[in-house]
Amino acid sequence: MRFRPLVRVCLSTALIPQFRVEDYVVVVIDILRATTSFAVALDRGVREIRPVRSLRECRELGRQGYLTAAERGAKKVPGFDFGNSPFDFLEADLRDKKLAFTTTNGTRALWAVRKAKKVVTGAFVNMSVLVDWLRQQEEPVLLVCSGWKDQVNMEDTLFAGAVATELEGDFRVNDDATLIAMSLYQMADSRKKYYLEHSAHFERLVELGMQNDVKYSLRRDLHPVLPYYQEGRLVNALSIPV
Amino acid sequence: MRFRPLVRVCLSTALIPQFRVEDYVVVVIDILRATTSFAVALDRGVREIRPVRSLRECRELGRQGYLTAAERGAKKVPGFDFGNSPFDFLEADLRDKKLAFTTTNGTRALWAVRKAKKVVTGAFVNMSVLVDWLRQQEEPVLLVCSGWKDQVNMEDTLFAGAVATELEGDFRVNDDATLIAMSLYQMADSRKKYYLEHSAHFERLVELGMQNDVKYSLRRDLHPVLPYYQEGRLVNALSIPV
Repeated sequence: MRFRPLVRVCLSTALIPQFRVEDYVVVVIDILRATTSFAVALDRGVREIRPVRSLRECRELGRQGYLTAAERGAKKVPGFDFGNSPFDFLEADLRDKKLAFTTTNGTRALWAVRKAKKVVTGAFVNMSVLVDWLRQQEEPVLLVCSGWKDQVNMEDTLFAGAVATELEGDFRVNDDATLIAMSLYQMADSRKKYYLEHSAHFERLVELGMQNDVKYSLRRDLHPVLPYYQEGRLVNALSIPV
Repeated sequence: MRFRPLVRVCLSTALIPQFRVEDYVVVVIDILRATTSFAVALDRGVREIRPVRSLRECRELGRQGYLTAAERGAKKVPGFDFGNSPFDFLEADLRDKKLAFTTTNGTRALWAVRKAKKVVTGAFVNMSVLVDWLRQQEEPVLLVCSGWKDQVNMEDTLFAGAVATELEGDFRVNDDATLIAMSLYQMADSRKKYYLEHSAHFERLVELGMQNDVKYSLRRDLHPVLPYYQEGRLVNALSIPV
């Protein structure tokens, strides 16, 4: 019988300590909106993205010639070039630019899994590229939902469930968190919009006038890139062999 | 408009620090099998249950005249009166006895939430009594899934989803973990058996020959008691006013 590696879901950054990340290829997920925007920016030609935790670091990289993107509490921080809306990057000229990017949840998750075998980021906008690449690795996969302030959220869980569902057959599933995410996705598939409109973060974004960001973040395969994390930088694994 | 308190779900003991438990009436859930067996034992006439963390404490209480129940890795520990199978308590003469009970996940969860406004335990076998009592409290409710070694599990999540679904209308829901548990329950309701047969813990118990424990733990309202936790003891809140 063919060897099938495990695929597992970690539902919150607060649960990462339960896993030996060294054993996994890790996918960091922050659908609304960091990992969606990473894919957009790389597809628009950005050479590298430096995810950083503090506004201070981001500002410092700005002085070194990086473009800067900064979001706090779902809003663009004044004095930086961009917020973290995918539309900020869709409309800008980014060819061969370098981008420093600080965001609330996604950056923390990347930092927390930096010792993994490999780290990439995933979103609906680059889902098929991600799934194909994961199949090629032939390694155990851990799908890490960034969540919202360590709390489990709907959109990241649905995406993790979608990826695990795609991988099933080539991968094994043996834990309940993964089964829960897959069940939720399979039942929600045709009702994804319904589910997300009832999610807590969605409501926050709508209150802030960001419905279009949400709609965009749920579209599939618009940006065929794979953000790959190494030495503190995200690069497109499809254009730079890693 | 009528005041509606919050109902929330905490999917794992590892996520308890995200909540100010002092603000909530907390329900500890460990369907397979601690909180199911608590209900059985109190319904069979046990006067009080002392959940303890170590085998040593349990043995010491045995010397003081308590009956003793001890489980590790889903198995009864030799030298104690009972394991934590509901059938152990169904068949024993327990009227007015005191019971010391040590178990892997449920006891840890009780300890972790001891500063809550009130703490009770819930299971399918005492679900309606629990739901009625929660309605009477008119306080925010936190449903804490014990999980399996801090990992999210299916059976506790489904039960939390069932209780939140029953309470909806009289309570508010405003977070995604609760919505996920409710969605899972509502979709799984008629397929509960299917879901549990695919759960990781179910498989472990079946390998150990405990299918009947699982079947029993999924039956509703067999034991109309409410295990209430105070001063380190569980008593039946329906027979002793609390």
